[in-house]
Amino acid sequence: MSTAPTDERGLITPIRFDGDGLDLLDQRVLPRQVAWVRCSTSGEVAQAIAAMVVRGAPAIAVTAAYGMALAARRGEDLRAAAAVLLASRPTAVNLRWALERLASVPAEGLADAARAIHAEDAAINRALGDHGAAVLPSAPTVYTHCNTGALATGGWGTALGVIRSVHHGTAPSHRDAEARRIHVFVGETRPYLQGARLTAWECLQEGIDCTLVVDSAAAVVLPRCDAVLVGADRVAANGDTANKIGTLSLAILARHHGVPFFVCVPSSTLDPRCPDGDAIPVEERGAEEVLGHAGAHWAADVPVFNPAFDVTPASLVTGWITEHGLREPPFGEVAG
Amino acid sequence: MSTAPTDERGLITPIRFDGDGLDLLDQRVLPRQVAWVRCSTSGEVAQAIAAMVVRGAPAIAVTAAYGMALAARRGEDLRAAAAVLLASRPTAVNLRWALERLASVPAEGLADAARAIHAEDAAINRALGDHGAAVLPSAPTVYTHCNTGALATGGWGTALGVIRSVHHGTAPSHRDAEARRIHVFVGETRPYLQGARLTAWECLQEGIDCTLVVDSAAAVVLPRCDAVLVGADRVAANGDTANKIGTLSLAILARHHGVPFFVCVPSSTLDPRCPDGDAIPVEERGAEEVLGHAGAHWAADVPVFNPAFDVTPASLVTGWITEHGLREPPFGEVAG
Repeated sequence: MSTAPTDERGLITPIRFDGDGLDLLDQRVLPRQVAWVRCSTSGEVAQAIAAMVVRGAPAIAVTAAYGMALAARRGEDLRAAAAVLLASRPTAVNLRWALERLASVPAEGLADAARAIHAEDAAINRALGDHGAAVLPSAPTVYTHCNTGALATGGWGTALGVIRSVHHGTAPSHRDAEARRIHVFVGETRPYLQGARLTAWECLQEGIDCTLVVDSAAAVVLPRCDAVLVGADRVAANGDTANKIGTLSLAILARHHGVPFFVCVPSSTLDPRCPDGDAIPVEERGAEEVLGHAGAHWAADVPVFNPAFDVTPASLVTGWITEHGLREPPFGEVAG
Repeated sequence: MSTAPTDERGLITPIRFDGDGLDLLDQRVLPRQVAWVRCSTSGEVAQAIAAMVVRGAPAIAVTAAYGMALAARRGEDLRAAAAVLLASRPTAVNLRWALERLASVPAEGLADAARAIHAEDAAINRALGDHGAAVLPSAPTVYTHCNTGALATGGWGTALGVIRSVHHGTAPSHRDAEARRIHVFVGETRPYLQGARLTAWECLQEGIDCTLVVDSAAAVVLPRCDAVLVGADRVAANGDTANKIGTLSLAILARHHGVPFFVCVPSSTLDPRCPDGDAIPVEERGAEEVLGHAGAHWAADVPVFNPAFDVTPASLVTGWITEHGLREPPFGEVAG
């Protein structure tokens, strides 16, 4: 089991930019290995995003922003670079948001602008964490899916950021030791196992009390939970929410059991230009992710349907927690 | 990919008794390997059941029956042998049913009695398959979970037996070629992956059209399905149904989407002595099944909750399909 690369404050730092290159903590091999992938061009960054070296909607946006900084550094055609980065993964809207924000920045300003997006995302997550904690009782038990932590964002995390804000007592609602005693059920999140590999690892690094379950056990443990907390890759104007496959299932189960279901996202994940869930492109990934994992191949060789995301209708969501607090659709244009 | 050991009719034969020993197709390594575990004593049979060399409630019952035949052959204490076999797995009631049926059989009759249980279970599944097919439309699309086929029973299968009866046109309701065109969504069934490894393999052997999905994708594909078909390990008198972990989740999702949810079981799975689901013991298995699979270990080393089964309340079940047709609770004592 590997320990996390951290900054001077002890925060996990999976995305490191030194001006000339970008080092990405390889999330495909965590937690067994701490390995880094170095990218020197925007094409290498796009490849790393497509291959899921880095994943998580906010982290993809930060990574793509550094990709634009590298494109400027290497004298690449910036419009072409942006197009290649935009195509690297289709579902998360944060990627488009970051690239559009950088479109008006002159080449020599791209490195600083990318660093600003990175720093802002971490700050946004802290604010989001405070607002999210406020909807939870003292000493809560929550269920979470996929990875929405420091690995998935510019730092801290969205849904896992809320959990961090409770655990570390940084949220005003959960300052005292008793209130901070949070327990987290972590769904393993097949096929890519972001829950088992990444969220469990982040919890272990920080001493957050968690229990790992297979995704299909959620129906059994939800009655013990005060809330379900998930992130999202894109939220349509009407509130329909695209997130990791399995999120729709959780939302239906939470409704059945009467458990509040919260979507935790930076405002950059809200997509006012997308009217509803039908307009969100859902990426399908290869069969090999389902037929096995990490080189192991255990299944019989039958056809596979492997949607990377699903869309939860707004009617199943209790609330959307952003850096501006609890929000309700319709979602209009937001300050960026 | 291995081909199946079959009998002269082409049926998969995972349990083979030759009077002096029992050969069990090792379901832990399918479909990559066809390996056999030979048992010569009742203790070896109990060990094989506990280790999941063979699994599936009806198959466990057949295997335990042969275990009693071996106990007689070796001159073991029959009461002690029965107690060890009964303790091998706690949730499936068929095991108890078979051992109680054999309790009054003299030692010299146990081999024939075990063969009779085996043959009867296969015949029961054929009748169950006909009744189950009758609830499905022409050319149905169904969702199934875990493995309930020839590997899980004395032959043919329960839920997968219904699918076989449609596919092979043995059911009166599905004789013509068009009606027989069944499509099956197979949930991979973490953690033990009986869907991905065993059901997908059985479908492949017989040319049954199937698509493999991760369990958490069920919410996405159920709207395309005419029914969910599952087996069970024990059905309480009031209809509460214990089955592989993930079944409760499927039942809730099916209700949400308005898809009929059928439990397919031989009468020996009905337990009139068990009033409701609260009285069904649910086996918890080790963390290693969730932390990885088959020697691979991918998760961070956090605590795991790994219930092998869950209990679906009767209110979420559309109907129980047995060899006697569609049944409704309460379930009294059955002939058997």
